[in-house]
Amino acid sequence: MNTNRQDVVIAGIGQTDVGELWDVSLRDLGVRAIQAAREDAGGLVPQALYIGNMLAASASHQANLGALLCEWAGLKGAEGTTVEAADASGGAALRMAYMAVASGMVDVAAAVGVEKATDVLGSDIESLSTRNLDADYEANEGQTPVGQAALLMQRYLHENQFPREALAAFPVIAHANAVNNPHAMYRKPIKTESYLKSGAVNGPFNLYDVAPLADGAAAVVLTRAGLLPKGLAHPLVRLAGSSLVVDRLALHDRQDPLFFEAAAVSVQRACLKAGISLADVDFFEYSDITTLHAILSLEAAGFAQRGQGWKLASDGNLLLTGSLPVATLGGHKARGNPIGAAGVYQAVEACLQLRGEAGGSQVPHARFGMIQSLAGTASTAVTHILERRDA
Amino acid sequence: MNTNRQDVVIAGIGQTDVGELWDVSLRDLGVRAIQAAREDAGGLVPQALYIGNMLAASASHQANLGALLCEWAGLKGAEGTTVEAADASGGAALRMAYMAVASGMVDVAAAVGVEKATDVLGSDIESLSTRNLDADYEANEGQTPVGQAALLMQRYLHENQFPREALAAFPVIAHANAVNNPHAMYRKPIKTESYLKSGAVNGPFNLYDVAPLADGAAAVVLTRAGLLPKGLAHPLVRLAGSSLVVDRLALHDRQDPLFFEAAAVSVQRACLKAGISLADVDFFEYSDITTLHAILSLEAAGFAQRGQGWKLASDGNLLLTGSLPVATLGGHKARGNPIGAAGVYQAVEACLQLRGEAGGSQVPHARFGMIQSLAGTASTAVTHILERRDA
Repeated sequence: MNTNRQDVVIAGIGQTDVGELWDVSLRDLGVRAIQAAREDAGGLVPQALYIGNMLAASASHQANLGALLCEWAGLKGAEGTTVEAADASGGAALRMAYMAVASGMVDVAAAVGVEKATDVLGSDIESLSTRNLDADYEANEGQTPVGQAALLMQRYLHENQFPREALAAFPVIAHANAVNNPHAMYRKPIKTESYLKSGAVNGPFNLYDVAPLADGAAAVVLTRAGLLPKGLAHPLVRLAGSSLVVDRLALHDRQDPLFFEAAAVSVQRACLKAGISLADVDFFEYSDITTLHAILSLEAAGFAQRGQGWKLASDGNLLLTGSLPVATLGGHKARGNPIGAAGVYQAVEACLQLRGEAGGSQVPHARFGMIQSLAGTASTAVTHILERRDA
Repeated sequence: MNTNRQDVVIAGIGQTDVGELWDVSLRDLGVRAIQAAREDAGGLVPQALYIGNMLAASASHQANLGALLCEWAGLKGAEGTTVEAADASGGAALRMAYMAVASGMVDVAAAVGVEKATDVLGSDIESLSTRNLDADYEANEGQTPVGQAALLMQRYLHENQFPREALAAFPVIAHANAVNNPHAMYRKPIKTESYLKSGAVNGPFNLYDVAPLADGAAAVVLTRAGLLPKGLAHPLVRLAGSSLVVDRLALHDRQDPLFFEAAAVSVQRACLKAGISLADVDFFEYSDITTLHAILSLEAAGFAQRGQGWKLASDGNLLLTGSLPVATLGGHKARGNPIGAAGVYQAVEACLQLRGEAGGSQVPHARFGMIQSLAGTASTAVTHILERRDA
């Protein structure tokens, strides 16, 4: 027991299924995740909700989720605020909850990620999701997040000549891992041949290069170690490092569009805070919004040299048995990408790993997990280091 | 000098004009306020922006303001996140910045409020602003924020019989104070007779009962006292108390719709944290979104008994020379209501008072200012206590 009473720990986790949940409303999704996390935290009642969400105001005409979810979750007299950093909203909400508890101004907080991305009002979600780009200089000109990533992928393929089959290993690994995740959107393994035969969605991306946008909600309950209830049924997870960094929003303003600078700096700062090096990281929940995001995240973090990230999947390093397991419960690709909620899903999944509850996808003896929430083409990067602490 | 090195203080403030600023974009508004606050803070560079905004994603198709404003304000490698609690977003952003600095995880943060509410894309702002209500059970049924407040005003008039002229004193005071605010939207005094003759906008409200929605941006730079640069040209302002509380979002779910419970609890908690009582409050920047909001805020805080708040204005208590000056630089009514930015304007205005820089609207010898940011019909209430500290 080497936990300090002031350490911020994750006392409970909860999540809903990820998918096209046409029969579940935004508020019901949020409430289910909050209730599950409360129960898992031995009944600790959150005094504050920090809610990661990108699209509710646009897609569901609902702002002010703090008041909405506190009311529907029965949290009278609580604090509730939305935290928005586009697709990185979940990671940003986790960081706000961490700060609130670390500051001593809140004793028990929940970071909640919730997104209702399908079955929305009057507009399609792909169009709404372009709001993570520069509205005046990118989206207005017809650019989309996946379109930008596809252009970068084309450039990456041009700069680094390699067999196209190498890319297949990214979704193949994600889908293989999702088989063991009962909440995942796609629990079916895929084969390299299916990847190679699948249709183009936005050249050079094919169907399996792009994670599906989805509905879902996840929650984690945070407190300081000294305030934990006795007899929690699971090992503790400590927040050891946290960093949120932004890059220039518009891709054309960056010096090197093929380097995710915000992600790089965010990883460095989070590791520094946690007092660890990359070699200590036992698994990496990255934001594989597209295969390009997966590759450039690995390079930005420093797990591969520039131009070499594509090799890690096909070389076997990213398998559960490899040196750096990724997307251990399916990642964005196979768990599904619930946009502003995705960052909190990563936190829940990292806790499952660190608690030894990841079933068939368990990474053995994991002590440090790194999770990273990205917005758009990595205009925002939020990185957290989570550490197992034996109670 | 009784300032502790760990105290969180406001080192600099900045604001743009409030109004229909058709020639200024969302990003330019934000950048101007940030630059002004940086200069006022003796050149302290914010490491993080917490941005209060309600409508950019809907009205300007722009999410991810953190990355956008850091880029345009030249803050490379910084942190940036949007904080949304509908019209209370500005107050919520101030609280997040406070927590970030208090936690030690950020040394210099800016709370930025920015809203571009006029000249927006494809929809009118009144319709977008209904997103602060319950979308499924209120807005969908045709309710609007001003409509809800008007219904409550009707009930208040029914329960508390009093001469209609008494209400005129609220906008009359706000407009009189705004004359001395160069950034205010309306700097023209109004008379009781004009109020009584003005047309109904949403019975029983007439034109002067409802604050005008507007564009604007404001920023405050926060740090810990021990990190202040030497030789700041103005007195220090300390954040002495902070509280964010939500009520049930839907009005029909509340036990007593004429009591702003979230506002009441928020004031109690903020005063407790600051170690002061209501008698210590030298002025109150309330959210006079409508005259009803003004009255019920006074009652919720405890400055008046239930049903008696309407008297305070006509009795002269709320004048600059009264026992509780309000809307000292115009309030929402005459400074203008830049929605998600309004809470940060309140912080800037309170600093001007506490620093003795409020010109013709100066409240003499002010030590404690209370500011309160409300969303919708007080579904969210954020209260801060600011204290003058002589350096």
